[in-house]
Amino acid sequence: MAAPGTLEFDGASYPDGRASDPRELGWMQGSPPAPGKRIRFADDNFLSFPQIRWSLSHMRELVPTVNVWRGEGQASSLGEPGDGAAIDALTFTDMNGRARRWDESLYDTYTDGVVVLHKGRRVYERYFGALQPHVPHSCFSITKSYAATLCATLVHEGVLDERQLVPHYLPEMKGTAYANATLRNVMDMQIGVAYSEAYADPKADIWDYSRAGGLRPRPAGYSGPESFYDYLVTLKPEGAHGEAFAYKTVNTELMAWIMKRVTGVPLADMLSQRLWSQLGCEQDGYITVDPIGVPMGGGGLSASLRDLARFGELMRREGEWNGRQLIPAAVVQDIARGEDPAKFAKAGYKLLPGYSYRSMWWVTHNEHGGFEGRGIHGQRLYVAPKAELVVAKFGSHPVAASAAHDPITVPALIALGRLVQG
Amino acid sequence: MAAPGTLEFDGASYPDGRASDPRELGWMQGSPPAPGKRIRFADDNFLSFPQIRWSLSHMRELVPTVNVWRGEGQASSLGEPGDGAAIDALTFTDMNGRARRWDESLYDTYTDGVVVLHKGRRVYERYFGALQPHVPHSCFSITKSYAATLCATLVHEGVLDERQLVPHYLPEMKGTAYANATLRNVMDMQIGVAYSEAYADPKADIWDYSRAGGLRPRPAGYSGPESFYDYLVTLKPEGAHGEAFAYKTVNTELMAWIMKRVTGVPLADMLSQRLWSQLGCEQDGYITVDPIGVPMGGGGLSASLRDLARFGELMRREGEWNGRQLIPAAVVQDIARGEDPAKFAKAGYKLLPGYSYRSMWWVTHNEHGGFEGRGIHGQRLYVAPKAELVVAKFGSHPVAASAAHDPITVPALIALGRLVQG
Repeated sequence: MAAPGTLEFDGASYPDGRASDPRELGWMQGSPPAPGKRIRFADDNFLSFPQIRWSLSHMRELVPTVNVWRGEGQASSLGEPGDGAAIDALTFTDMNGRARRWDESLYDTYTDGVVVLHKGRRVYERYFGALQPHVPHSCFSITKSYAATLCATLVHEGVLDERQLVPHYLPEMKGTAYANATLRNVMDMQIGVAYSEAYADPKADIWDYSRAGGLRPRPAGYSGPESFYDYLVTLKPEGAHGEAFAYKTVNTELMAWIMKRVTGVPLADMLSQRLWSQLGCEQDGYITVDPIGVPMGGGGLSASLRDLARFGELMRREGEWNGRQLIPAAVVQDIARGEDPAKFAKAGYKLLPGYSYRSMWWVTHNEHGGFEGRGIHGQRLYVAPKAELVVAKFGSHPVAASAAHDPITVPALIALGRLVQG
Repeated sequence: MAAPGTLEFDGASYPDGRASDPRELGWMQGSPPAPGKRIRFADDNFLSFPQIRWSLSHMRELVPTVNVWRGEGQASSLGEPGDGAAIDALTFTDMNGRARRWDESLYDTYTDGVVVLHKGRRVYERYFGALQPHVPHSCFSITKSYAATLCATLVHEGVLDERQLVPHYLPEMKGTAYANATLRNVMDMQIGVAYSEAYADPKADIWDYSRAGGLRPRPAGYSGPESFYDYLVTLKPEGAHGEAFAYKTVNTELMAWIMKRVTGVPLADMLSQRLWSQLGCEQDGYITVDPIGVPMGGGGLSASLRDLARFGELMRREGEWNGRQLIPAAVVQDIARGEDPAKFAKAGYKLLPGYSYRSMWWVTHNEHGGFEGRGIHGQRLYVAPKAELVVAKFGSHPVAASAAHDPITVPALIALGRLVQG
């Protein structure tokens, strides 16, 4: 049992969400911040805990970024939030059998902010720590859900053909793991590629990939890949395509490369043109860029919490927004329907039984037809059509893997769906 | 005489504004950009020509930045621009006796964009190269005019005392050049400090200062200052204070440090709270930050061209905006009145006879009472109250020093003042 105000993960103890508030702890405050309270890119600790509690609301202050322009229109209305008392008081049982209350659970999942929409109206909104309503927060891998929804739209429009092999679009990828992979294999992450994304392992390939993209400092004398693209062409095959789900961020980067090669439109501009400026987003978003200016499709997006919720609401409405079809309904229906749970099961996510993965959304196949974008350290965009529910949630959890908080988050979202359904 | 389509500065030949359009030249286009068309921070060439023609509209994609939030209000109206034909056809004689036409002169000054307001209405607006209306562009040292206008406002409000010595606010500065300098000395750049800002000299101190601030790559084994503040405390005296104008960016950085130390409000937030959100700016701006997150008060601001013009218009209106006094009229009047031209003359700007420098504005003492913010490579915010004129101009000139284009720009602005006066 962890001491009061602390939580344990994998045998290590951490201050909980309340006790690690970066404002209370004084991170990056003062002129200059005290030496022990500085968060510098070069120190390679901005994703360490508790620094991460500040960093995920300040990514652009650490690395170069490109703007996702909201356009010139008015922000769309989400309605005025109520007091949310019924949601705060919601009780549920976590996967370990412990009774929990919604409001208290937010501290135990290191929540930075949460917005709940029911039938498109904002029924709950909370902010914690470094996050404010107008401040973009890292979406991490929810970026993938944005990018692949646009990719599936390009497929629907005939701009891309999901049956084509990767080298049809990117001849550079001949001789790599992707030589005989289809675009659809990539979109569903059913790729046999030698690449590890075990975040807790400092030797995992994800960190080499991050260094290639300029998102972690490079050691003196670094001679590795100079960009995401340079990294992608080094990837070697391991296993077959199309047989099992295997979560690897490089797939999204490759998909984004294909989108850019074929359309000529950078991801940041495509997000602006097709989503941000159409949805009445209230803040510009941004995407981290690699050393040659390529936006990181695999996890670089930061957005305001409300704007993340707007994207979820668009998906709940099957792509329709104020009478215009921004994303084809067939694209959303295909995502909501999901893929083969048997292929998902091979990936071994014990906390996610019966799930599947389609176009870079995690499909729960639960009682509310829920599907979700998920990002490390507590990012979640949950869309539950049968409960007419959207939940956008940002966090800065000490542990990267969602497994650290899914035992709370997954049952909380199902309980919330039941509550709003009445 | 330079060849057609080229211009000569200091004996070197450059393609002119038309011939160096970064879109036409393909800089940073393609996926990936061709090796010869990449602009990377690590290559230390993003301010080289012609790369600079792209970079100054894309600073945030090269270095970390902090947002200057525009708030939630509607953008203020500048009126619809006319066709600007009369301004395009304006003729004037440059300082070398050559007859010029306004529209053609824009290419010879490497203009990225220009907006002209007369009586607060937009009478002319043009964009070139990489700049678009919604894209922030580097203001370089016009940042100083923003920062010092806010500093003078804090003095007016009694938050700061301009007669105090620097160490009163920053004890760290005892034992430096600033030990016996007043805040007012700093605001007017009448400081005796050993520091060179000769941009054409690669050994000038300005480049060490830039490396300290993370705005230029550091060589392997770099052991210099790690931040702007660390750099400032190294500065040694050279000459007396209060006797002569001497343009040194470190003065602004020091002033911004004092503002932050006393108010606790970061410069980006102060700009947002007091200007961006009050003026109805239409885009967020941003400021480059140093490795410990300090916004660069000396030159780090990027703003959209129209938002720069809005600040000029606020100054023309002596700080009043829609019935509210955002900046005290006395502060603006004090700037417009200028300082002692005899002290300015000692700095040896042969192209700027009779000028003075007050609160980090250049005061022309010309027939229109003009005062202006100036930034290297062609940035200008010209406020001419007697002509009811504001001109905001961004450029990406191959030469840093304004002396490279002042022979055209200075007479062009005076001629424009006469034209709009009718």
